[in-house]
Amino acid sequence: MGGGEHKEAVLVTLPLPEPTAAIEKLQKKFPHLKITYKNVSHTKDRSVLDKEVPKELWREATVLLTLFSLPPQPSDAPLLDFIQLFSAGSNQLASHPIYTDTDIPIATASGVHGPQIAEWVIMTHLIHTHKYAQLYEAQKQRKWGKDPSYKVRDSVGMRVGVLGYGSIGRQVGRVAKAMGMDIIAYTASPKDTPEKKKDVGYIVPGTGDPDGELPSAWYSGLDKESLHNFLKQDIDLLLISVPLTKETTHFLSKEEFKILSQDGKKPAFVANIARGPIIDQPALIEALKDGTLAGAALDVTDPEPLPSDSELWHLDNVIVTPHISGNGEAYVDRAFQILELQLEHKQKGEKFINVVNRKRGY
Amino acid sequence: MGGGEHKEAVLVTLPLPEPTAAIEKLQKKFPHLKITYKNVSHTKDRSVLDKEVPKELWREATVLLTLFSLPPQPSDAPLLDFIQLFSAGSNQLASHPIYTDTDIPIATASGVHGPQIAEWVIMTHLIHTHKYAQLYEAQKQRKWGKDPSYKVRDSVGMRVGVLGYGSIGRQVGRVAKAMGMDIIAYTASPKDTPEKKKDVGYIVPGTGDPDGELPSAWYSGLDKESLHNFLKQDIDLLLISVPLTKETTHFLSKEEFKILSQDGKKPAFVANIARGPIIDQPALIEALKDGTLAGAALDVTDPEPLPSDSELWHLDNVIVTPHISGNGEAYVDRAFQILELQLEHKQKGEKFINVVNRKRGY
Repeated sequence: MGGGEHKEAVLVTLPLPEPTAAIEKLQKKFPHLKITYKNVSHTKDRSVLDKEVPKELWREATVLLTLFSLPPQPSDAPLLDFIQLFSAGSNQLASHPIYTDTDIPIATASGVHGPQIAEWVIMTHLIHTHKYAQLYEAQKQRKWGKDPSYKVRDSVGMRVGVLGYGSIGRQVGRVAKAMGMDIIAYTASPKDTPEKKKDVGYIVPGTGDPDGELPSAWYSGLDKESLHNFLKQDIDLLLISVPLTKETTHFLSKEEFKILSQDGKKPAFVANIARGPIIDQPALIEALKDGTLAGAALDVTDPEPLPSDSELWHLDNVIVTPHISGNGEAYVDRAFQILELQLEHKQKGEKFINVVNRKRGY
Repeated sequence: MGGGEHKEAVLVTLPLPEPTAAIEKLQKKFPHLKITYKNVSHTKDRSVLDKEVPKELWREATVLLTLFSLPPQPSDAPLLDFIQLFSAGSNQLASHPIYTDTDIPIATASGVHGPQIAEWVIMTHLIHTHKYAQLYEAQKQRKWGKDPSYKVRDSVGMRVGVLGYGSIGRQVGRVAKAMGMDIIAYTASPKDTPEKKKDVGYIVPGTGDPDGELPSAWYSGLDKESLHNFLKQDIDLLLISVPLTKETTHFLSKEEFKILSQDGKKPAFVANIARGPIIDQPALIEALKDGTLAGAALDVTDPEPLPSDSELWHLDNVIVTPHISGNGEAYVDRAFQILELQLEHKQKGEKFINVVNRKRGY
């Protein structure tokens, strides 16, 4: 498997212009690598994809870096022994035979946009708590006067509940902690030893919570009772950063919002940067309208694009952005940095990082 | 001086309704204290003030908590031996005879709004770097589509230059560091020992940089050369958090913006939460228009209110807010917490904290 033994052929299929600097860097690091770049359409349509990626490229590929374009069948890529996804999630591939019928390791880019998305979460939290929309509209009107309704409070002493303490949740935790907030973490499986609390995936250097030292308390479980026990903990900001799986589909609905907000006595703010269907959206809209929730920041919706007649667009306690929280100019560099790490691991016969557990679904 | 020896009379004159909870808490802690509250107008007009605060209140006061209302002359308050200001700065009193002709200790509320203002700085920095205005306007138009001009980058690896490493600067440093940024600090006098790097004023628990451990480098001096040397250090975000003094009036002008932005090659973002006149405003406007600066977030302007015909209102790389960054609901509680600390110090014969150095001017 060593780089010198047989020629690794890395096929990169991404819906963006060739990132030449990143590819040159990779080629320089691994001179024996054959790297082929294909700028593909942003579609899963097989007929389009088959025109864009010639069969011989699938046939020779040993490593694939992609967003969602895969060979038609596993047999079309007989040499493929590692897939690096460009996305943090893998559910876009969940029904593909490579996912269901092979055990070719598939790794996500989870961790790449920890800082980028964490900043979106902190920004929207601050825009909400500091009533920035009011300030923005006053500026447009050239209005200096202080509005008596401008009552805000800083975040010192607030509590962030991080539903899914992965790379994004950990970086939100790091920043929120620095702001004087308390962090509580929720994970699918219990993190009851120092070893289990560690982040074993890719971490942008200088960020995150590598050893899981920040949360004042940890909660776990995929059943309703465990979830409700977590939501009960006097949370001011609930960050949804769990993967979308069968178990997490409509994980949060009317009852959960009620529990989260202490039966309406303390309306919480919800930020969703994961996937729209994790929230029962009609129930969310109701909770936002009747004051059960203080507000929401949604970078993902159900469906996407959010239909123009959705009430979410115009609720004044809601921030909607078009699934851009992870779109950062550092993304490509960092995704290629993961691929570089993975190729190093492969060369040395070490384990890959960020590998999807097919049973678990992420 | 002990609480039991003679009756301390604390006079509180603030332009807000009586904060009864905070006053009750203070009274409970110091049962022997006579506390009088006067809700005064938001003006320095002597004739108004003299009507609002009867002479006998000045005459008996030993301690004053105020924003800017003082007795007409020092002789009108013969027992006054400590003044706690409600503001972080003291320049509103600089020409009053109590300031110029007595040495009654005057302490500021510096530190109280560290977290509140730091959040404003982080918020405006993120609004700028994540192009939030573009997202906000798209939401108003119910537009999901991703604008190809939406190119953003997270703050990992950016550098914050903190001009005035006080309580606000330290808390911005704490949060920015958690975001993966590098911090450099600038102070009037050199902080060349661990002792000098410490924050000796009031610190909201769990925030700030009490020991001055965060900056990767420290700069100092009030001369142009020292300032320019600091500004040269490849700063992405310049935070202006120095007090307004003779030396800092128009501290930043055309030349400084040019140096800050590496001769225009790397336009920086400037946030001013201190006082408007620290910046030469016409020079700022020019630098914002010609691209020398990437943008600015201004909670203070020169003059205030900012005239409605100022170009600052409508430059699309400028955020203007009406001197509200420190207005937080925690402010009153924390200001009274400082007063409580000061009364404790007084009772024990210890030094007050946050005392203004009249020679230095803050």
